[in-house]
Amino acid sequence: MRSSVAFGVSSRARTLAQTGRPAAVWRLAGSLASFGLKDARQTASSSCQEQTRSSSSTASHSARRTLSIRAAMASNGAAAAAAADLRLVKLRAAMAAADGGQGVAAYIVPTEDPHMSEYPPDHFKRREYISSFTGSAGTAVITAEQALLWTDGRYFLQAETELGPGWTLMRGGTGSCPEINDWLADSLPEGSRVGFDPFCHTVEAVNKLKSKLQEKGLEAVPLLADGNLVDQAWGADRPGLPTAPLRVHAAEWAGASIQQKVDEVRQKLAGVKADCFLATTLDEVAWLYNLRGSDVPYNPVFVSYALVSLTDAVLYTNPEKVTPAVAEHLKAGGVVVRPYEQLVADVKAKASAKARIAMDMSNVSYAVFQAAEEAAAAGPRGRKRNAADAVVPAAAGGSKAVVDLVSPIVAAKAIKNGAELEGMRQAHLRDAVAICDFLQWLEAKIASGATLTEVEVDLELTGRRKQQQGFIEPSFPTIAGANGNGAIIHYRAQEGSCKTVDAKTLLLIDSGSQYDCGTTDITRTPHLTVDAKTLLLIDSGGQYDCGTTDITRTMHFGSPSEHQRRCYTRVLQGHIALSQAVFPEGTPGTAIDTLARLPLWRDGLNYRHGTGHGVGAALNVHEGPQSISTRYWITTPLQVGMICSNEPGYYEDGGFGIRVENLLVIKEADTEFRFGGATFMAFEDLTLVPIQTKMISAELLTASEEQWLDGYHKLVWERVSPLLADKPDVLAWLKRNTAPLKEQLAAAGAAAPAPAMAAV
Amino acid sequence: MRSSVAFGVSSRARTLAQTGRPAAVWRLAGSLASFGLKDARQTASSSCQEQTRSSSSTASHSARRTLSIRAAMASNGAAAAAAADLRLVKLRAAMAAADGGQGVAAYIVPTEDPHMSEYPPDHFKRREYISSFTGSAGTAVITAEQALLWTDGRYFLQAETELGPGWTLMRGGTGSCPEINDWLADSLPEGSRVGFDPFCHTVEAVNKLKSKLQEKGLEAVPLLADGNLVDQAWGADRPGLPTAPLRVHAAEWAGASIQQKVDEVRQKLAGVKADCFLATTLDEVAWLYNLRGSDVPYNPVFVSYALVSLTDAVLYTNPEKVTPAVAEHLKAGGVVVRPYEQLVADVKAKASAKARIAMDMSNVSYAVFQAAEEAAAAGPRGRKRNAADAVVPAAAGGSKAVVDLVSPIVAAKAIKNGAELEGMRQAHLRDAVAICDFLQWLEAKIASGATLTEVEVDLELTGRRKQQQGFIEPSFPTIAGANGNGAIIHYRAQEGSCKTVDAKTLLLIDSGSQYDCGTTDITRTPHLTVDAKTLLLIDSGGQYDCGTTDITRTMHFGSPSEHQRRCYTRVLQGHIALSQAVFPEGTPGTAIDTLARLPLWRDGLNYRHGTGHGVGAALNVHEGPQSISTRYWITTPLQVGMICSNEPGYYEDGGFGIRVENLLVIKEADTEFRFGGATFMAFEDLTLVPIQTKMISAELLTASEEQWLDGYHKLVWERVSPLLADKPDVLAWLKRNTAPLKEQLAAAGAAAPAPAMAAV
Repeated sequence: MRSSVAFGVSSRARTLAQTGRPAAVWRLAGSLASFGLKDARQTASSSCQEQTRSSSSTASHSARRTLSIRAAMASNGAAAAAAADLRLVKLRAAMAAADGGQGVAAYIVPTEDPHMSEYPPDHFKRREYISSFTGSAGTAVITAEQALLWTDGRYFLQAETELGPGWTLMRGGTGSCPEINDWLADSLPEGSRVGFDPFCHTVEAVNKLKSKLQEKGLEAVPLLADGNLVDQAWGADRPGLPTAPLRVHAAEWAGASIQQKVDEVRQKLAGVKADCFLATTLDEVAWLYNLRGSDVPYNPVFVSYALVSLTDAVLYTNPEKVTPAVAEHLKAGGVVVRPYEQLVADVKAKASAKARIAMDMSNVSYAVFQAAEEAAAAGPRGRKRNAADAVVPAAAGGSKAVVDLVSPIVAAKAIKNGAELEGMRQAHLRDAVAICDFLQWLEAKIASGATLTEVEVDLELTGRRKQQQGFIEPSFPTIAGANGNGAIIHYRAQEGSCKTVDAKTLLLIDSGSQYDCGTTDITRTPHLTVDAKTLLLIDSGGQYDCGTTDITRTMHFGSPSEHQRRCYTRVLQGHIALSQAVFPEGTPGTAIDTLARLPLWRDGLNYRHGTGHGVGAALNVHEGPQSISTRYWITTPLQVGMICSNEPGYYEDGGFGIRVENLLVIKEADTEFRFGGATFMAFEDLTLVPIQTKMISAELLTASEEQWLDGYHKLVWERVSPLLADKPDVLAWLKRNTAPLKEQLAAAGAAAPAPAMAAV
Repeated sequence: MRSSVAFGVSSRARTLAQTGRPAAVWRLAGSLASFGLKDARQTASSSCQEQTRSSSSTASHSARRTLSIRAAMASNGAAAAAAADLRLVKLRAAMAAADGGQGVAAYIVPTEDPHMSEYPPDHFKRREYISSFTGSAGTAVITAEQALLWTDGRYFLQAETELGPGWTLMRGGTGSCPEINDWLADSLPEGSRVGFDPFCHTVEAVNKLKSKLQEKGLEAVPLLADGNLVDQAWGADRPGLPTAPLRVHAAEWAGASIQQKVDEVRQKLAGVKADCFLATTLDEVAWLYNLRGSDVPYNPVFVSYALVSLTDAVLYTNPEKVTPAVAEHLKAGGVVVRPYEQLVADVKAKASAKARIAMDMSNVSYAVFQAAEEAAAAGPRGRKRNAADAVVPAAAGGSKAVVDLVSPIVAAKAIKNGAELEGMRQAHLRDAVAICDFLQWLEAKIASGATLTEVEVDLELTGRRKQQQGFIEPSFPTIAGANGNGAIIHYRAQEGSCKTVDAKTLLLIDSGSQYDCGTTDITRTPHLTVDAKTLLLIDSGGQYDCGTTDITRTMHFGSPSEHQRRCYTRVLQGHIALSQAVFPEGTPGTAIDTLARLPLWRDGLNYRHGTGHGVGAALNVHEGPQSISTRYWITTPLQVGMICSNEPGYYEDGGFGIRVENLLVIKEADTEFRFGGATFMAFEDLTLVPIQTKMISAELLTASEEQWLDGYHKLVWERVSPLLADKPDVLAWLKRNTAPLKEQLAAAGAAAPAPAMAAV
């Protein structure tokens, strides 16, 4: 369950590590979980379970869920409170009638969809519908008397505000808060039946649930025939599955044909004596078949499965999405299209015909696994056995139909081929042009005395990206956080209530990266303006036809304080240390995460998020299996061709946020020696945008760090300046901002205002 | 199984990590395993399975195993070959007759004893007896036709030499070598029974074996009633259990009474609703009851168990070892002594009386676990069930009698109290006096033109330790490796065949630490002499009444080459980086291991062993649960009061070995800020012996590194010089060798011989 991010993460992640299946672990983004529970405890309220206030402000949502959460936020509160009750009334009726009238005493509603997506389509947002809680991580549990929502420390305030009366917030990650499975086992009477939709839980999650409930004499009941019980309550208001047409990802940028990719999968099948492999996560399918879609904002994927056997390759999706061009592309690749809903029946047919189906237990839904197992048991081959009762997953020998296999597609997708790398380089050049254009404009605007809102900052930046060739959409919602808003890691400015940027602002510009910053991450923080007093963080990224970008810059438009500059310099030193790292094959990202934190740690500073996530090539901005973070259980080795973000930060609540983020590609290092014949690796920066030197306390930098910075800026100038020939102002800005550090500081000193400004 | 070090380590260690039980993982020392298999593959022969030659040199062992392996080595070879056969003949007869005549098709003989000791007493060295292989890591499997030994790359050469005719060496860690469980499952016919002594396998290991064998229709058979089948073959020649008397560990150095320690365990029992805790590893028992023994060389422990209930505390050991003083000490602490052999019966009695017994599944033998489970099932409480068939361990809910609990004693023992720390500081001061005295003597001796053997180096060093107050014995066999022998990580010089040390030697002085360098690690490398051309590595340590030491210094007595100095400087830079680390609570040792390697990695260099192990206070020189290493699955957080070694190195086969090792204690760091209220930690050096500056390429050091070195030497001078008042030569040596780096280099430059020497 996704909710494991904050409260059950250790055990789940460790299981994944144990089974040698890191493919999905990186998605357990939980910043708190990755950071030791003590921190979480210290920063969160001491009481885990807190009845939310039933003030009118807690019901600020429309009863009718529409496709736009944001639109819903402005609607009538009282109606929502009543409707929230009605939702629960209907769900409880469905619970009582479930499983042929046997009923269930509790029903679990996780965030996950059947593809364990980080960002599910609205169609699958059952937890959000039933609880009104829009955060990206959380699990609801409904019993006859209670309605509870588990989430983690990032969302306590938001959940308190959004949950209706009658809901209880379970403050996951705080010491006193039980994990969901423990709560169920300990709170419900012996003999109770706990229902869940087997499409929305992985095999691993269900095995854990079963084991825990069995221990206390309770029963876990996968409700397959009933469908999802929330859908019964949701009724006609539930959004349909998206129907946007697919598009072909050009061979120029894909770099490998469907046939080549499918053949690679087939080779893996031989190794594990399986007849076929089922890919269940959406970016796997998109990558495998060189297709892109738009079923989810920012993620160019589409609702689908892929089943590759030794002879066939099938795409399960809505056939209406298949344009003639896509049909031709698939035909050429030897891929057959079958309806999305056909998948389970086909899996059953294969299993009962004795096929051995490889799946990744950390990603595949229990429903699909169960279908295969039951069909195999009932089929001509196996003796009759009740697969639903199997506690031991396939890997431990409990199954003949299902082969547990770490997805070979996830691994292949992570290691970019030459064309993918070239596409990523192209995308970053185009992105650099847009961002330099934007930053030059922003600086000039604020210098002219203007005050901007955070939303205007976002619009101006995105507008310049749109001018670039091949731009499709942002790769995630821009985070433009002024001063204190920069400290809210999953902040998103919204129309009508955002900070303005001016010359007193420290601006952090980024786009959330692994911080679960999807459309649904709405905070209640008052938005600020940006001016000459602002420290502004901007985290943003673009989806281009050829690649995906993700960059954060933090800048001040007036005179940052000494403390801000010290903190910024520590962040930058971490950024540089990671960028300069050299490491041998076999090294996981967790082993080099420390390099990015050490300069902060020496001052007693830190940040509560990972340092680097994988990035897809013209695909999801967050992908696995690698992770540079303190999620120490992720031991996937870094490999040549992988792309990672490098984004250390530092945040002071209510004060400011700092983050410096580039994307890096891993290449072979040119070391003097090669001990034991090992391949040594190093990083190459893909991102090519200046780092604001005004924020640097130069006296804290070592000679080597200054050399890195000057070298980086030289590279930025060489690569980006040829593309700015038609923009003399931007070119001059780039020239100034890529000069050696000492030159920039001397120029700033000469142009500096009265010393009194430095104390701002 | 201990043999998992090299070939099964990932899966076992990951299981441990999953169950949140890191207590025992640190012991999986395997340097190769910790390093990515590719290295191991590249350095090892490409073929896993290699029939050893049956030349006469392969049987250089006495047929009669005596207490002294070394004595045995000189004996008649031909007799041994014949006896080896006889041993197998007898074992196979026992296998055929086992389990009431049902017999077993294969029998597994691991290195482990019933206490999962790193160094078992001779009484328990069954694997060594049956295979003649004396390495510290390996598992034998005997079938009707075959006799196989799995070991890892450190021991391939040694195993080839030692294994008799008819034995097959399984080169663990090489790509083509199956893990033992897989080999059994794949090689034996369906229905085969695989026997093992349940006292010598952990519960976790047996569960894995059962699961794998079941998958292929084979059966794992714990042979309890038969006793260990190797013992039947061994017969009267088998050494008895050691009978050396116990001694009281003085309260002055223990710092906590038995009562206090036992009470701490009892508090943990309440938390897991258990009635008692069973401690099964020998250093746990010694620490808990403030006792020491001498059943195993170098490790001051004794064969025993401890069982702590809410009302009682029992020591299971040979009552003959209990002197009157020890008896009084135990009585005062409320501890009852019962015979060692009584443990299983007592566990059964408790289990059948419905007691819930807490044990650490990663340490406890399957025999003890099984005894509890069967008694509980047969007793008045439980329904009848066959515990031997339980694949799921207690933690997963399969048991009512046994509670799986990470040993609270291991955790408490790792975090030293004030008295233990004071004892460790005292021990290191005494050790510093001995080592400075020795190094001054050694330098002078070689400068006078003398040539020494490596054994003489060891004897002189140990002789000086013996002069120190409270010295008991070395904490491990000294590694004094000249030139190429310094590159053999588990090297031990033996009488009659060792390198001499002279002014051309780079000498590495250390004592093996986590490198499995026990008495049995005998290599066939010709031993060398030490002179002015020697680079000498000396790794050594002492057991004192108050504490335990472990130090490595590497030095040259003439003019080291540029390459040697560069490599040494990289090692020292790693050593300094780790020593200077600052990190927040929750950080595991694996996260800072990188700091020690990065200076080497940048040059494409590395070392195939861990960087730091825990050290007991007047106890075993290797202890858990923490580990600073590339064993990334060990995520035990470092904590204030833990002691770790800091020992990066670099080794060139046949050339030279470099290692610089200090012991460190973790203390609270005095950082400028404390983000999130977290405790930040830093290291303090316990070891106080100069680092040879002749080996340093000063131009490679940063200002910060030079500052560390000068500060360290200043500290050494301040602490150690007052103790050398009666040794003016040594005091003068210390003065010279603790002067600031620039002064030392200037002095060396002034005294330097003709430049031509530098090319040596």
